[in-house]
Amino acid sequence: MTGTLVLLRHGESEWNKANLFTGWVDVPLSEKGRAEAARGGQLLAEQGLLPDVLHTSLLKRAIMTAELALAEADRHWIPVTRSWRLNERHYGALQGKDKAATLAQYGEEQFMTWRRSYDTPPPPIEAGSEFAQDGDARYAFLPSEARPATECLKDVVVRMLPYWYDSIVPDLRAGRTVLVAAHGNSLRALVKHLDGMGDDEVVGLNIPTGVPLRYDLDDDLRPLKTGGEYLDPDAAAAAIEAVKNQGKK
Amino acid sequence: MTGTLVLLRHGESEWNKANLFTGWVDVPLSEKGRAEAARGGQLLAEQGLLPDVLHTSLLKRAIMTAELALAEADRHWIPVTRSWRLNERHYGALQGKDKAATLAQYGEEQFMTWRRSYDTPPPPIEAGSEFAQDGDARYAFLPSEARPATECLKDVVVRMLPYWYDSIVPDLRAGRTVLVAAHGNSLRALVKHLDGMGDDEVVGLNIPTGVPLRYDLDDDLRPLKTGGEYLDPDAAAAAIEAVKNQGKK
Repeated sequence: MTGTLVLLRHGESEWNKANLFTGWVDVPLSEKGRAEAARGGQLLAEQGLLPDVLHTSLLKRAIMTAELALAEADRHWIPVTRSWRLNERHYGALQGKDKAATLAQYGEEQFMTWRRSYDTPPPPIEAGSEFAQDGDARYAFLPSEARPATECLKDVVVRMLPYWYDSIVPDLRAGRTVLVAAHGNSLRALVKHLDGMGDDEVVGLNIPTGVPLRYDLDDDLRPLKTGGEYLDPDAAAAAIEAVKNQGKK
Repeated sequence: MTGTLVLLRHGESEWNKANLFTGWVDVPLSEKGRAEAARGGQLLAEQGLLPDVLHTSLLKRAIMTAELALAEADRHWIPVTRSWRLNERHYGALQGKDKAATLAQYGEEQFMTWRRSYDTPPPPIEAGSEFAQDGDARYAFLPSEARPATECLKDVVVRMLPYWYDSIVPDLRAGRTVLVAAHGNSLRALVKHLDGMGDDEVVGLNIPTGVPLRYDLDDDLRPLKTGGEYLDPDAAAAAIEAVKNQGKK
């Protein structure tokens, strides 16, 4: 028996609202983001899609999204595992920078390359700088050579997949309904893998915030339906449009 | 190296407020309880006692207390493990009953025996009754003979200790600061064990809500200071008085 996978991208954070590049900076949800998370949980409850187990990143915007959604679905008590491998893409030297100012400074071509190219990372963040994670206790266990200073989406795929195979797949193999609460790019990396998308194709993929995305998988962990199914398709379509236009104001 | 143990009893729940026996019924925190939890987290942050790992029961009043406290201390991201072995004492047929009405119906001697005797459990709860947990998905993995229908404190000691030895002690042995967010009676059971209290002695032990209790332990997991140290001793003393008078209104 193979279980059901449910992907949930965190709701709006304070820095999404402020239009800043976030990456590994640990920013809380905004009020709107908290409401999106609760709405995600209501969808799970309404549709009887009750997670048996939770996997999150180490960042509070994903953790709080899961807590708020599970509270709505009365599933506070399910086992949870957290990993840096589900973190958002590390945005390198762009972390903490204003998106509109970055666009104005570097021009649209460079800006879109950093945002959307599959294999071109932004410049690395300087060790010890304000938005670097050098001294962060949550990564203390990780030897310095394994800690990113910047990442492109390809790097995220490489560091996320071991967690998929070693931690998420065994839960699915056990027949569980697995909730993964994570980020735009760590979820794009996972969807790329699941749907067998090409490197060019994933560039156009946007995952909306706060709308659970359900994948039913066959015995070889392939989706029965490519792209999965959003629990609220209309809200998903509207949110995808909003993400596309991000940074363009 | 032996780590540091921090015990945190959940803040006021809706049923504490309503003066009902709760046990394994999954009741949320009251507004006051949420504030107590946040205050507990502020104490951890102020005193630099930052947990590396969290253990909770399967009940939302303990889980929410931990979530709120860790949010205050900016430690959302620490690993968490949950177990029914940290649950509150199962209150048997008294679950859902009004404490004052029970006192009036059965008299003070019987009432205090059920509340405070070490080895006399209340009558078992009837299977399928309103406040029983028969159909509760969180206990589905547990064979029926292992699921309590009522418990005295002695029963709680017996079912809690395996979790202490197998799950909490290894974290302490690894030098971690371990937060245990649980309940009046599961924590009394643990403190009885740590402090080597006699069966008669534990009857008089009250643990206040929302005030972290710190134990530093030697290499044999014995407390360096019997009784541990509350992070806010004045608040603890006041709260202990309040617990003593519970049910007497």
